[in-house]
Amino acid sequence: MKKIINDVDLIIDQMIDGLVKANDKILERLDDSTVVARKGPSKKGKVGIISGGGSGHEPAHAGYVGEGMLDCAICGSIFTSPTPDQILKAIEKADSGSGVFMVIKNYQGDVMNFEIAQEMAEMQDIKVDSIIVRDDIAIENYEDRRGVAGTIFVHKVLGAMAEEGKSLDEIKAKAEEIVQNIKTIGLATKPCTNPNDGKESFSLEEDEIEMGIGIHGEEGIKKEKIQSADAMAKEMVDRLLKEIPEDKKDYALMVNGMGQTTEMELYLVNNFVTDYLKENSIEINRTYVGNYMTSMDMAGFSLTLFAVDDQIVKYLDREVKVGRR
Amino acid sequence: MKKIINDVDLIIDQMIDGLVKANDKILERLDDSTVVARKGPSKKGKVGIISGGGSGHEPAHAGYVGEGMLDCAICGSIFTSPTPDQILKAIEKADSGSGVFMVIKNYQGDVMNFEIAQEMAEMQDIKVDSIIVRDDIAIENYEDRRGVAGTIFVHKVLGAMAEEGKSLDEIKAKAEEIVQNIKTIGLATKPCTNPNDGKESFSLEEDEIEMGIGIHGEEGIKKEKIQSADAMAKEMVDRLLKEIPEDKKDYALMVNGMGQTTEMELYLVNNFVTDYLKENSIEINRTYVGNYMTSMDMAGFSLTLFAVDDQIVKYLDREVKVGRR
Repeated sequence: MKKIINDVDLIIDQMIDGLVKANDKILERLDDSTVVARKGPSKKGKVGIISGGGSGHEPAHAGYVGEGMLDCAICGSIFTSPTPDQILKAIEKADSGSGVFMVIKNYQGDVMNFEIAQEMAEMQDIKVDSIIVRDDIAIENYEDRRGVAGTIFVHKVLGAMAEEGKSLDEIKAKAEEIVQNIKTIGLATKPCTNPNDGKESFSLEEDEIEMGIGIHGEEGIKKEKIQSADAMAKEMVDRLLKEIPEDKKDYALMVNGMGQTTEMELYLVNNFVTDYLKENSIEINRTYVGNYMTSMDMAGFSLTLFAVDDQIVKYLDREVKVGRR
Repeated sequence: MKKIINDVDLIIDQMIDGLVKANDKILERLDDSTVVARKGPSKKGKVGIISGGGSGHEPAHAGYVGEGMLDCAICGSIFTSPTPDQILKAIEKADSGSGVFMVIKNYQGDVMNFEIAQEMAEMQDIKVDSIIVRDDIAIENYEDRRGVAGTIFVHKVLGAMAEEGKSLDEIKAKAEEIVQNIKTIGLATKPCTNPNDGKESFSLEEDEIEMGIGIHGEEGIKKEKIQSADAMAKEMVDRLLKEIPEDKKDYALMVNGMGQTTEMELYLVNNFVTDYLKENSIEINRTYVGNYMTSMDMAGFSLTLFAVDDQIVKYLDREVKVGRR
């Protein structure tokens, strides 16, 4: 394991400080915490939007803190949920009296700890609501599906709504609507290496890929021989097409790198995916190609389809000022 | 070599098409070319800004085509200069009668081919001027220095000037001024693998790094044992401090990933670099952390310092609408 770090125990601390120092006009780190927040007091009348989870998915989530997206992100240890007291700090910071909305990826630790924090906040009369994102179609049962790259679309839409002064109830209703319409699947050509133990999250032969991986190095649906980019992307799109709402034809597309994959490869994937979706009568209104939700140094990519309407496209287009550049 | 591609001979074509398809409202590919251009006719009265070079540095340069930055980028084969006829197409497209300015990284093939294209364009009475970027301080002799990540700062400043209607002469003068004030050094923890032959660009032991690498996998100043992130970054900053103008204290900083390095690591590097520069009385006005100029799947990072004034900071802050997101 050859990583550019100082001490394994200091990675998260030094990463957070480095992100905040790069954006010291718009971000701050809350005292004695792993919470990255917008600098200064929260905006009166605005619902606070927060998210978080284990670290290792950079730029998610702390890179999305800023005007138009998140108010706070809570950074857990690598692939480990943040604790309720940390989440509570974020809720307290994000609340300006209009309540706080939490975007939670569907992992047992995250769901439990965010819910405990919600209860603690409600005891202080802070209004809190939440959505659980379950966009990963690699898992068959909807309730068990993991929250992966599509979570960034949720940040973006709800962040824009909050900025426009929408209420906690309106944000909750929109969140419940959109999470049904966001579907993701990913593959890995190389597992990630956890710096805590130097171990790879699964093993792959030199000619193998893992289809349907999770963002914590969870093994996927199956291992198979590596094929052409187009053939692999076709299998993924075919799986997505079975899951997207039948009555919707307008979509936003995300081609997300898992961490180690080059933009050259991601663009090449998009070349096929765009054409193939068109052949399947899917209208792509917006495309995002880049590293949005990574799994440390995993190689591979995920594809996300998000059924949109004109209003959602406006939210997606709304300018943001966040740490990720 | 495990890459997400179809056919080695189709990588550049499919990458370009994938980028353009992801941004089909703002970008187009010129017919029979590897030129990515802003969509539609060039803006009257605006100097065209073009750049390019071998591919493998994505998002550079094609990802920077769009309002506020480049008018066209010419994509060569992997690590290979584009031909003069391709560059000429870009010049013709970018010219609206006010001339075209070329940002050239200092590589023999690029310099030669851009100059030939300039001569061809001048025979058509198109005014063309250029700057050669030599920001890589790993090479001792200034004339021989390579153009690396700092080139993106040149795109940004000149792109903003062109958008504001500055003349070809004004842009040339500013270009000559700023390239003296941009200094970069990089290191690799892993070489890149050229898909054309599947070979690594140099070899490193499991505990070694290469200091002072170029962005085409050129070997650097020396191989050495990997140290802590802070120790490696300190050596790099010390080298930069010897090269930056003595009378300037305000800088923009870029912490650039070489392709495979995670944002977690890049932010961690920034944590040290920011503090250490402050200790050395350097004022950091703007910080950019991310993958801006890569070397395919190389792992490592580069640091760039760019001496700025208020006007340059305004140019850096100017909003852009480009393919890279």
